[in-house]
Amino acid sequence: MDINPQSAVPLYFQIEQDLAASIAAGEIAPGGRLPSEEELIQKYNVSRTTVRKAIQELERLELIEIRRGKGTYVREAKITQELTALTGFVEDMAAIGMQPSAKLLGTWTISAGEEIARQLRLPIGTEVVQIKRVRMADNVSISLDETYLPLPLGLKIIENDLEIYPIFSLLEEKYDTPLLEADYRIEAISADPFVAKMLEVDEKAPILLIERTSYSLDQKPVDYEKLFYRGDKIRFTTRLSRRAAPFSIDSIKPPAIIAPKDNL
Amino acid sequence: MDINPQSAVPLYFQIEQDLAASIAAGEIAPGGRLPSEEELIQKYNVSRTTVRKAIQELERLELIEIRRGKGTYVREAKITQELTALTGFVEDMAAIGMQPSAKLLGTWTISAGEEIARQLRLPIGTEVVQIKRVRMADNVSISLDETYLPLPLGLKIIENDLEIYPIFSLLEEKYDTPLLEADYRIEAISADPFVAKMLEVDEKAPILLIERTSYSLDQKPVDYEKLFYRGDKIRFTTRLSRRAAPFSIDSIKPPAIIAPKDNL
Repeated sequence: MDINPQSAVPLYFQIEQDLAASIAAGEIAPGGRLPSEEELIQKYNVSRTTVRKAIQELERLELIEIRRGKGTYVREAKITQELTALTGFVEDMAAIGMQPSAKLLGTWTISAGEEIARQLRLPIGTEVVQIKRVRMADNVSISLDETYLPLPLGLKIIENDLEIYPIFSLLEEKYDTPLLEADYRIEAISADPFVAKMLEVDEKAPILLIERTSYSLDQKPVDYEKLFYRGDKIRFTTRLSRRAAPFSIDSIKPPAIIAPKDNL
Repeated sequence: MDINPQSAVPLYFQIEQDLAASIAAGEIAPGGRLPSEEELIQKYNVSRTTVRKAIQELERLELIEIRRGKGTYVREAKITQELTALTGFVEDMAAIGMQPSAKLLGTWTISAGEEIARQLRLPIGTEVVQIKRVRMADNVSISLDETYLPLPLGLKIIENDLEIYPIFSLLEEKYDTPLLEADYRIEAISADPFVAKMLEVDEKAPILLIERTSYSLDQKPVDYEKLFYRGDKIRFTTRLSRRAAPFSIDSIKPPAIIAPKDNL
């Protein structure tokens, strides 16, 4: 695309569109570096202000990221993962052709606080097994997983190499605990210092937190997890059907307008 | 609970547990103010360092929030909303007994960029209608909604009072466009300056972004939305069933260990 200074379309927007088209066409690949400000000024024959405005807009659209002191890069696409069935990380990565791996941070026996106790339906203070792992896809850290298991099952699980064997597979195939379903709770939070360090992101970086409680065939909660996903690395998709609207538009009343007092 | 300085349990943890119990029991209500540092030092007869450590832990657990210069408050519980069917904001709030309202920021006719064009299956550059609203529950801002509609339908929709009538209801009941289903894409991002201002949160605050493309009965995309939810205000829940694991544990091979060269 040629930049046209006579056009009614602002110059920065023409440049923004041109760069966006190059990115969409793959001429600058994900992870690739954009030309420098100087180069763009030369190429388009415009002012620095105009180039900066175009770059800012591309950043706002999340097409690029500015790494301070390093340059401007095309964003890697987020991993897109279906949220339609209870699956573990290894299964999820296999489904999209990425190589999963795990780093075990440690295993502990802890006394269940209020939330863990509620999720596993145990009295507060009951001992449970806690496992912390960083999960990676093609060697990039994607999530920090905290797993809480009831004691007898948990003690058996942690005898295995948890950098290799998925906990779901161990539960289902080795310890005769097939899973039926799970409750998911999904929210956006800021990375606290520990999460930030483990996932190699800035403190307060956006994290997609999934809390998941998995149930065995007899509806007993057997695995409670907190999965801290890097917000810049992952996106979940699902398809939901419409059910009949619970009310009719005719039932919606505009707020009463305060009528002028009757003057009669 | 009495604080026991002789206990093996660290003092800060005893205080943390005591305050957490008060919060759980509702003795300090959501939105309520915790006693000041001075008051806690007096109450528990411990050092300032100990009180501060307890407070920090409660903040890390997201039970409280420290508002600089104002004090420490019990966090309001997040709104918990089901993510199991295609529903609009007004339906969602009605389902949990909250009063929905909306502030219309404006409506525009814009030329569809790459993403909007793809979602609505239109050529890039096609004119579409853009609607921006802030959605509120019980008068608190919950989400910023950007809606994109194909032109003819969109021009009809914006003739209505969009602070009162839900777009889904208008589509389905007034414009003969019943919805069948929608694709959801869910991710965590940081608030950009515009989103932060509209939702009254700090820049870079965590945002749960839902992009949603709704389809009419003939599978045509009729409504593409970007819903920027305040991360501190909402949580989505769903229940997913297990389907058979796609591989057996026996197929997982530990990484090959590099064998020492045969010395023969």
